[in-house]
Amino acid sequence: MQDRPLSLPHVFRRVERYFGHKTVVSGRVDGETAMTWAEVCARVRRLAAALDELGVPAGARVGTFAWNSHRHTELYLAVPCTGRVLHTINHRLFGEQITYIVNDAEDDVLFVDRSILPAVWPLIDTFTTVRAVVVMDDGGDTEIPDDDRIVDYEDLLWSTKDSGREFTVADEDTAAALCYTSGTTGNPKGVLYSHRSVVLHAGLLLMVDTFGLSERDVVMPIVPMFHVNAWGLPYSAMLCGADLVLPGPAMSPPELADLLARHKVTFGAAVATVWRGLLPLLDQHDLSSVRQIVSGGGAVDEALSRAYRDTIGVPLTNAWGMTETSPVVTTSRIGTAHDHYTHEEKRALLGTPGPAIPLTEVRIVGDDGQEAPWDGRTPGELQASGPTIAAGYFGPDGGTAAFTEDGWLRTGDVATIDGHGYVRIVDRTKDLVKSGGEWISSVELENAIMDHPDVAEAAVIGVADAKWGERPVACVVAHPGTTPTAESVREHLRDRVASWWLPDQVFFLDEIPKTATGKFSKQQLRSLYRTGAHPAEHAK
Amino acid sequence: MQDRPLSLPHVFRRVERYFGHKTVVSGRVDGETAMTWAEVCARVRRLAAALDELGVPAGARVGTFAWNSHRHTELYLAVPCTGRVLHTINHRLFGEQITYIVNDAEDDVLFVDRSILPAVWPLIDTFTTVRAVVVMDDGGDTEIPDDDRIVDYEDLLWSTKDSGREFTVADEDTAAALCYTSGTTGNPKGVLYSHRSVVLHAGLLLMVDTFGLSERDVVMPIVPMFHVNAWGLPYSAMLCGADLVLPGPAMSPPELADLLARHKVTFGAAVATVWRGLLPLLDQHDLSSVRQIVSGGGAVDEALSRAYRDTIGVPLTNAWGMTETSPVVTTSRIGTAHDHYTHEEKRALLGTPGPAIPLTEVRIVGDDGQEAPWDGRTPGELQASGPTIAAGYFGPDGGTAAFTEDGWLRTGDVATIDGHGYVRIVDRTKDLVKSGGEWISSVELENAIMDHPDVAEAAVIGVADAKWGERPVACVVAHPGTTPTAESVREHLRDRVASWWLPDQVFFLDEIPKTATGKFSKQQLRSLYRTGAHPAEHAK
Repeated sequence: MQDRPLSLPHVFRRVERYFGHKTVVSGRVDGETAMTWAEVCARVRRLAAALDELGVPAGARVGTFAWNSHRHTELYLAVPCTGRVLHTINHRLFGEQITYIVNDAEDDVLFVDRSILPAVWPLIDTFTTVRAVVVMDDGGDTEIPDDDRIVDYEDLLWSTKDSGREFTVADEDTAAALCYTSGTTGNPKGVLYSHRSVVLHAGLLLMVDTFGLSERDVVMPIVPMFHVNAWGLPYSAMLCGADLVLPGPAMSPPELADLLARHKVTFGAAVATVWRGLLPLLDQHDLSSVRQIVSGGGAVDEALSRAYRDTIGVPLTNAWGMTETSPVVTTSRIGTAHDHYTHEEKRALLGTPGPAIPLTEVRIVGDDGQEAPWDGRTPGELQASGPTIAAGYFGPDGGTAAFTEDGWLRTGDVATIDGHGYVRIVDRTKDLVKSGGEWISSVELENAIMDHPDVAEAAVIGVADAKWGERPVACVVAHPGTTPTAESVREHLRDRVASWWLPDQVFFLDEIPKTATGKFSKQQLRSLYRTGAHPAEHAK
Repeated sequence: MQDRPLSLPHVFRRVERYFGHKTVVSGRVDGETAMTWAEVCARVRRLAAALDELGVPAGARVGTFAWNSHRHTELYLAVPCTGRVLHTINHRLFGEQITYIVNDAEDDVLFVDRSILPAVWPLIDTFTTVRAVVVMDDGGDTEIPDDDRIVDYEDLLWSTKDSGREFTVADEDTAAALCYTSGTTGNPKGVLYSHRSVVLHAGLLLMVDTFGLSERDVVMPIVPMFHVNAWGLPYSAMLCGADLVLPGPAMSPPELADLLARHKVTFGAAVATVWRGLLPLLDQHDLSSVRQIVSGGGAVDEALSRAYRDTIGVPLTNAWGMTETSPVVTTSRIGTAHDHYTHEEKRALLGTPGPAIPLTEVRIVGDDGQEAPWDGRTPGELQASGPTIAAGYFGPDGGTAAFTEDGWLRTGDVATIDGHGYVRIVDRTKDLVKSGGEWISSVELENAIMDHPDVAEAAVIGVADAKWGERPVACVVAHPGTTPTAESVREHLRDRVASWWLPDQVFFLDEIPKTATGKFSKQQLRSLYRTGAHPAEHAK
């Protein structure tokens, strides 16, 4: 067979030649932009030439701080198709984390949406490798600093021209994209996606039993393009020629509902928090075009799914994955084995992760290191393997704790698998809180709290939250003779962690319950919280 | 990313773990067999051990002469999953060709359906490398020769047991399967499929815009499993967990119609000849389960497609490929750009090859060696590239004439491609009729003739002409009970094709000679014409 790499230049050629007439809509602060893929591709060719002129070396990381937009899409193609690495960064992270990530990745240039500039520019002098910051006008009114390092995206594009060169990435194992995940402890870790993994993953989402994306779809990734490549949806849309609707900074529920209805979106993807926020607006919009909405970042809230089913006729469907897995590993679906289920049972099933998609394998492993049976009852740590799953982390000190001796990824989730291969997440081995689809490290938050001069001990647990799925709750023991308040703890944290990490509730206890080995017993804390046995008078 | 090969052991593990409850139905001479995939997989494990016991070396070719059946499916898995090469052979070839192919491939053992034994056993002494012939009982009553080289398949399976070993093929470029194509000239040439190409191709058929196969499908490959792996459909069915209905030797129209109806087949694939044969039987069966029927091996006959549409509500859809291309390269579909088409226009579009599927690229190249524009008018030789397309032929003297300098496959078909990438085959390079310096498309002319109410089949060949260089000659089979005349055919064509396309001669035959794969044999027709062996009394 021909030695043809699975690489993004194929995806570029395909969308350019076959789907030039299809559209990419991008929300802006001040309206929206509609472009054809032909226009986007012509801009990609210019951007590729501009990257050359900027002197970005082969293999160098190009950092992006951007909403979902056609410009971000242009970067998704031009950067990897020219052998550079697209490094998407979550601008909502705490400043120190952003600095760490940019420096760890050794980003050569940054592309930043104008409305996001306030989160990035103040850090510019902490970046050790960044030579230039390209500002993309998303309609935001942030003042552009008068600085030699600042370049305007459109100026850059229009000061150059398509060099006419064909894109080639001959080795499919070449790095294409980089995304950092916040681990349980220590610094964020980078996951490097290869051209091979990106292209395979893009194709997997086109399969009927995965997401079944096709040329007839209008795909709206509400999940950010800085979050595991927006679940790979932009690349899948390019491969099949679907229209793409990108909300940009227009992320409020009324704006999202308007986009869904006006552009007749057929497929939407977001974390549960977004779908929950949209619920009150559904009956004001015609959403009859929607055929599937995927709710990721945790199990689907059944009441929410039922509400969608009742309102727009489509329940929420679940999918499971993580930054290390490209991300989609499982997707929920009703198999022929479930034809006898009631409607309610089917809806409930759709709210669970479902079976692994092709090319990807999962297993559950018990505490004894043995694979647990697929009986739907026995739990074990969920482990994943496949060509779209990470083998390690970016950089020399990426660490190997997350991988087994035979090279499987330890996901940190505890799951059961039933006889048909349907995964259900039952617990988490890692000490993490998942809020709005993003991880919060309990350990880091605890350390930050314990930095407070009046705090002796602190433990953080995740508790169910209607809006965010989970929120962190801090359990604090004060130093003798001091009386810290919940507000003083939050105030202390404000310039130490991202604002969305701030615990909504802070409880003061006489002591943190401990395990036999002296570790904080999160299990007992969670149990205390659930039963309301936490001393109410300590709540502030 | 993890270094996980795209190889068939993954497909085996997937069908075994996820889809053990799904079924494989196999037609027999004397009835049919239904098995679950779990049963098939258990037999695959035994067969793998049996291949070890037979001493078949790694990399050796295992030849099969078999109908579509669960046993052939077991070979599809056990042979490549243990690092051997599955070599499927068309038993309808001439004896000399079979001998050539078996010896060229250096087949180590042969697996032969009992009903096919008469085509193979008489050649046994012409085979230079075959050590054993394993006979598979398909209900045929052929006497089994009393010979040491003969082994019974079930005896082989039940004299061993699953060794319990895990299948591993670490290098995805390892050869998995071998299939010979009858070239236009010279000896048949072998095309070697790698594990990578087989797995990629299997996945491609699951994509919505390709065939959209899913766990809910009941797939019936009528196209033989010795013909380019039955278009890869068995492997796709394993990957997605579809039920499989394999007709075995039950290939008569009444048997096929019965299988389609009784097993509620949703997806069928065959050459046009088969669909034509089934047409008179459609109204006697409930075929409401059918969602797609693909007619390959040439453009779809419009009248036939219309008849299917009118009878069972589903038109024929086309796909294009060849042995060298795994085989699917293009599949027909109605894109959003065709939404304004009339029903008739849509049906006609579905009868053409359509656009290339993901991972695969096509181009058309003119006589000047330059790529022709995608304008829907300019013809050029169709060339194909991608990881599922051959780079050469099996063996040292495979020849390179079919490949360009930059490694693309020269398909030998002449095509146009329109602005949306839709391919239309104009003709085979060697079949083109060039009259007065202008090309005449035999295919279009044949379709126009077959629209004649009294015409069942028509084939057009070019014959030398003193004045025009070449002129088209029509070879026509009348519908039973009708007696169309040459003049009535010409009259019918007068407002359908250009006047210079009108065939000067129209011959009426009892049947059009066909190749082993059911296509019109232009070669035999030309030979018939040259030797004057066409029944003169039929000429009108």
